[in-house]
Amino acid sequence: MYRDNPLKRISWADYQQLSVDERAPYFLRKGKPNHTLFAQQFDRPLVERICELATRTRRIAKTRGGMRFLQDLLAEKRAMLYFSQPSTRTFLSFSAACQILGMQTNEVRDAATSSEIKGESHEDSVRTFSSYFDLLIMRHPTKGFAERIAWLLSNSERPVPVLNAGSGADQHPTQALLDMYTLQRSFEKNGGIDGKRIAFVGDLARGRTVRSLAALLRHFDGVKAYFVAPDELQIGTDILALLDAAGMAYEVTGDFRPVIPQVDAIYMTRIQDEWDQAQESRLLDTSAYHFTVDDLGLLPPHAIIMHPLPRRAEIDPAVDRDPRAMYWRQVRNGMWVRTALIAMTFDRDNEIDRYHADLIR
Amino acid sequence: MYRDNPLKRISWADYQQLSVDERAPYFLRKGKPNHTLFAQQFDRPLVERICELATRTRRIAKTRGGMRFLQDLLAEKRAMLYFSQPSTRTFLSFSAACQILGMQTNEVRDAATSSEIKGESHEDSVRTFSSYFDLLIMRHPTKGFAERIAWLLSNSERPVPVLNAGSGADQHPTQALLDMYTLQRSFEKNGGIDGKRIAFVGDLARGRTVRSLAALLRHFDGVKAYFVAPDELQIGTDILALLDAAGMAYEVTGDFRPVIPQVDAIYMTRIQDEWDQAQESRLLDTSAYHFTVDDLGLLPPHAIIMHPLPRRAEIDPAVDRDPRAMYWRQVRNGMWVRTALIAMTFDRDNEIDRYHADLIR
Amino acid sequence: MYRDNPLKRISWADYQQLSVDERAPYFLRKGKPNHTLFAQQFDRPLVERICELATRTRRIAKTRGGMRFLQDLLAEKRAMLYFSQPSTRTFLSFSAACQILGMQTNEVRDAATSSEIKGESHEDSVRTFSSYFDLLIMRHPTKGFAERIAWLLSNSERPVPVLNAGSGADQHPTQALLDMYTLQRSFEKNGGIDGKRIAFVGDLARGRTVRSLAALLRHFDGVKAYFVAPDELQIGTDILALLDAAGMAYEVTGDFRPVIPQVDAIYMTRIQDEWDQAQESRLLDTSAYHFTVDDLGLLPPHAIIMHPLPRRAEIDPAVDRDPRAMYWRQVRNGMWVRTALIAMTFDRDNEIDRYHADLIR
Repeated sequence: MYRDNPLKRISWADYQQLSVDERAPYFLRKGKPNHTLFAQQFDRPLVERICELATRTRRIAKTRGGMRFLQDLLAEKRAMLYFSQPSTRTFLSFSAACQILGMQTNEVRDAATSSEIKGESHEDSVRTFSSYFDLLIMRHPTKGFAERIAWLLSNSERPVPVLNAGSGADQHPTQALLDMYTLQRSFEKNGGIDGKRIAFVGDLARGRTVRSLAALLRHFDGVKAYFVAPDELQIGTDILALLDAAGMAYEVTGDFRPVIPQVDAIYMTRIQDEWDQAQESRLLDTSAYHFTVDDLGLLPPHAIIMHPLPRRAEIDPAVDRDPRAMYWRQVRNGMWVRTALIAMTFDRDNEIDRYHADLIR
Repeated sequence: MYRDNPLKRISWADYQQLSVDERAPYFLRKGKPNHTLFAQQFDRPLVERICELATRTRRIAKTRGGMRFLQDLLAEKRAMLYFSQPSTRTFLSFSAACQILGMQTNEVRDAATSSEIKGESHEDSVRTFSSYFDLLIMRHPTKGFAERIAWLLSNSERPVPVLNAGSGADQHPTQALLDMYTLQRSFEKNGGIDGKRIAFVGDLARGRTVRSLAALLRHFDGVKAYFVAPDELQIGTDILALLDAAGMAYEVTGDFRPVIPQVDAIYMTRIQDEWDQAQESRLLDTSAYHFTVDDLGLLPPHAIIMHPLPRRAEIDPAVDRDPRAMYWRQVRNGMWVRTALIAMTFDRDNEIDRYHADLIR
Repeated sequence: MYRDNPLKRISWADYQQLSVDERAPYFLRKGKPNHTLFAQQFDRPLVERICELATRTRRIAKTRGGMRFLQDLLAEKRAMLYFSQPSTRTFLSFSAACQILGMQTNEVRDAATSSEIKGESHEDSVRTFSSYFDLLIMRHPTKGFAERIAWLLSNSERPVPVLNAGSGADQHPTQALLDMYTLQRSFEKNGGIDGKRIAFVGDLARGRTVRSLAALLRHFDGVKAYFVAPDELQIGTDILALLDAAGMAYEVTGDFRPVIPQVDAIYMTRIQDEWDQAQESRLLDTSAYHFTVDDLGLLPPHAIIMHPLPRRAEIDPAVDRDPRAMYWRQVRNGMWVRTALIAMTFDRDNEIDRYHADLIR
C-alpha cells in the first residue's frame, strides 16, 4: 500500500528548499493525505471531503451496529501516539478516533523514559518505536520534526504515515480541520462557509490556531475576518500578507462590542501567557475581550461561538447553556475529523461511504 | 438511552441541601444505577442483584466462548479512567472489568499533565475529557467532586454515567460492594449474610472501608458487628449512631482473641498512618490486632478472613494458604462486581441473564 | 490449563539449590514454555520451533484476514506488563505482540505509583496485580525476582505464566531468541546457523545480550565466535568456560578489521557506560570498534550486521541503507518472536500451524 510515496523521490536537502505550498503534493498518495503535516496541504476539495466523511462517520456511529462496522474498519492496524509535549485533550481525541476505528494504540508520552537517555538519536528512537506500528501520531516541540520523521520513514523499509498532532507554536493541522468542520456543520443549512464573517478575538499574536485556520479559510469565497485584540496581541503582518495574497477581506480592530452584531461566528482565544517573555500579557487588562452573558443579546440568532479550549476567563461559563455556544460540540467534532482523516490515510474511506449509502437508502 | 435522568430535574443548590439517603434516587434510572457515587445508594435488592450478576458473569467467563460473548457486550463503548489520586489496584480492577466487557479505555492519571495547568477549571477539564467517552470512572481526593461532576454532566449534552472509584477518606462504593459480594459468595450455602457475626479489626477510626460496608450491612437481618481496635483507633460514634438507627447489633472491644471463635468473618484492616497528624499511630503497639497462624486454631471452620489490601503486618503471609483466607479471592471478586455494575449501568445486564440461562439449561 | 505445573512440586528452598540447567525443566508444560525466565531453558528444538512459528505468524499477518485470525487467537486473555525498569522499546515490542494476538493489556510502569509505598511487600503487589490478568510480562532490576514470582504464582490459586522481559544485568531471554531468529532467518537459504562464524564487537564484559546469545548458540553445530573488544571490555572467562564445556570454537582478539572478511555475521554492541564505576569506559577510545561505511567493502556479500539497539557511534547511520544491515529488521523480528512465544505459552500455536497450512496449500 505504500508503493506510491512521493517523499521517496526527493532528498532531504532538496525538500528543505521548497516553500510550504510546494511541499504539499509530497504528502499525497492517490489524492489522499498520506502524511498530515500542516494545514496548508489541504485544499478546498480535501477539506470538504474530510467534513463529508466526518459527518458520515458520526451518523454511522449512532447505532450499535454502526459502531461495530467502524471498529472493524482498521482493526488490524496499530497506532503509536508519540507525545513529547504533554497535551491530554489532543491525546485523548486522537486516541478515541483510533479506538472508534478499532485500531489498537500505544503511547510514548515521556521521551525521558525511552532509550533516548542512553545516547540514541531521536531519529533512531522514533524509527525503532514505529517498527511496531502502522501509524505514527506525533506531537513534538521542535518545528519541522514531524516533517523530518515523515521523510525519514518514507525512505525506510516501513514508510508508515505520520500525523502531526502539534509542533511547538508552529502547526496543529487537525485543530484547523476541526474548526473548519465546526463552521461547515454549523452553516450546513445556511449557505456553508462561503461569505461568512468570522471574528477572531483575544491573543492573535501567538498561538497557531488562528494562523492555521486562516490558511484554510482563504480557499473559500467571500469570507471576511475580523481580528479583535489589544494592540499588543494583534494579528501578525505575515498572516495579513497571506490573506492579502489570497484576496480575503479582513478588518483589524481593538473594539470588540461593535463587531459582535456583524458576524456569523466568533472565535474566542485564550491569552497564551506561557509564551510571555516578561509577563507582558499578565500586566494587560484583557477583560474587554471577554464574552459575557450580556453579549449574547448582541449576537445574531444564527451566529455561533467557538473556542479551541482550554478557556480561562474569556467566556463566562453561564454562556455554555446558550445553543449558539459551539465549543463543547467543537471538541467532539475534533474526534470525528480525526477519525475521518485516519480512515482516509489508510484509503478505507470508501468503505465508510458504502456503509453510509446503505444506511440512508 | 440517557433520556430519563433524574439529576436533570434538580438544581445544584437544591441537591446540596439533600441528605445522603435523599440523594440516592437521583442516581437511578429505570431502577438501575446510572451514577454510582456512594454505598448508601444501594439497597438490599440492588446489592443482591449485583451479586447475582457478578456470579453469572464469572461463570460465563470460564469458557472461551463465554469470554467472547462478554467482550462483545459493550464493545462499542469507551471508558475514561480519571485517577487524580494514585491507586494501581483499583485502577487495574476497573480497567480489567472494562476489558472483560470489551470496552476500550483511556486514562488520565496525573492531572498535572493535562491542560488544567493552563488555568482551566477542573469542571471544564473533566467535561472536555468526557467528550470522548461513554463512561467516566473517577478517583479524586476531594469529597463530593464525583457528585459535582455527575450533576454537571447530567445537565450537559453528553450525560455520561460516573462511577466513583474512591473520593478521599469519604466514599469507595465499589469496595463496599465487593466486600458484600465476598460475604455473599462465602455464605452462599450457609444461609447468606443474614444473621452473620462480623469482626472489624484494626484501624476503624479512619479509612472509608468499614464506614461504607456498615452502610450496606444494615440492610440485612440479624447481622452483628464486632469493632475490635485499640481505643485510639476505635470506630466513630457517627457509625454507631447509624447502626443504632438501623437496629443493627454491635459490640465494641479492645480484646481481639476472645472475639475470634465467635464470628463468621474477620475483616482485618491496615493502620492508615498516612492520615496521622503527628505519627500518633506509629507510636502505638498494634501487634495485638494482628492475625497469626496460631489464630487459625481459634477460628471456626466455616469462618472467613477478609482484608481490603494492601496489608502490612496485620496478617502473617503463612495464613494465606488456609482455605479460610479469602483476601486474594476478594481481589478477584472486585473485578467481577465492577464488571456487573458496569453492565447494569448500560442496561445490558439482561443480556448476561439470557446467556447464563442458556448456559445452565 | 494450569494443571501440570512442575513448579508446584518443589519448595522455594529446594529450587534455589538447583543449577540453571537443572531449573529449566520446571518451566515447561507439555514440552512448551510455561514461564520464560532465562535463555538457558531453550534447547535447539525449542529455538527452532519458535523461529518456525515466528515465520508462520509473520506470513499470516500479511493479509487483513490473517491479521484478524491472529487477533482472535488470544482475544479472551489479558496481559499485564509490569515494568519497574524503564524500557520503551522492549515494552512496545511486547505490547505489540500482545495486540497482534488480540490480547488486552495493562501496564504498571512505575512501582512508586502503586500501593507498594504503603508498606506492602513486592510479592503481595505483584500477586494482587496479577489477579486481574492471564499473563505477566515482567521487567525488574533485581536478579531472580521473576523466578521468585513465577514460583509464587505457580503455588497460588492463579498460576499465571511469567515472561522475563529483562532482569538487571542478568537475563533477557527474548532478546536472545530474537537474535537467534534473525540469524536463522538471514541464513535460511544458506545452511542455517550451523557452521556460521559470528563476531561480537564492543563491550563484551557487560551487558546480558552476548551472554544470553552464547548460551543458545552452543546448541548449534560448528558455530565459531569471535570476541572483538579492547582488553578492558573483553568477554568474561565464565562465558568462555561455558563455550569450552559445550565444545564451541572461539577466538579472542582486540583487532577488529582482520575479522570482518572472515565472518558471516557481525554483532555490534554499545559501550554500556551506565555500568561504569568511575567513568572508566568513557576514558577509553573505542573508535577502532566502530563499523563504518568503509568496512562495508571488507564484509562478505552474504554476511549480516546486527545490533540490539540503541546505538550510539558504533555504526555509522550511512550503513543503514546497505542490505546487509539487519538491525532494523531485528527490531521487527523481536515482535514476531514474542508473538510466537506468547502463542506457545498458551498452547495455541497449533492453531497458527493449521491456519498457515491452509494458507500455503
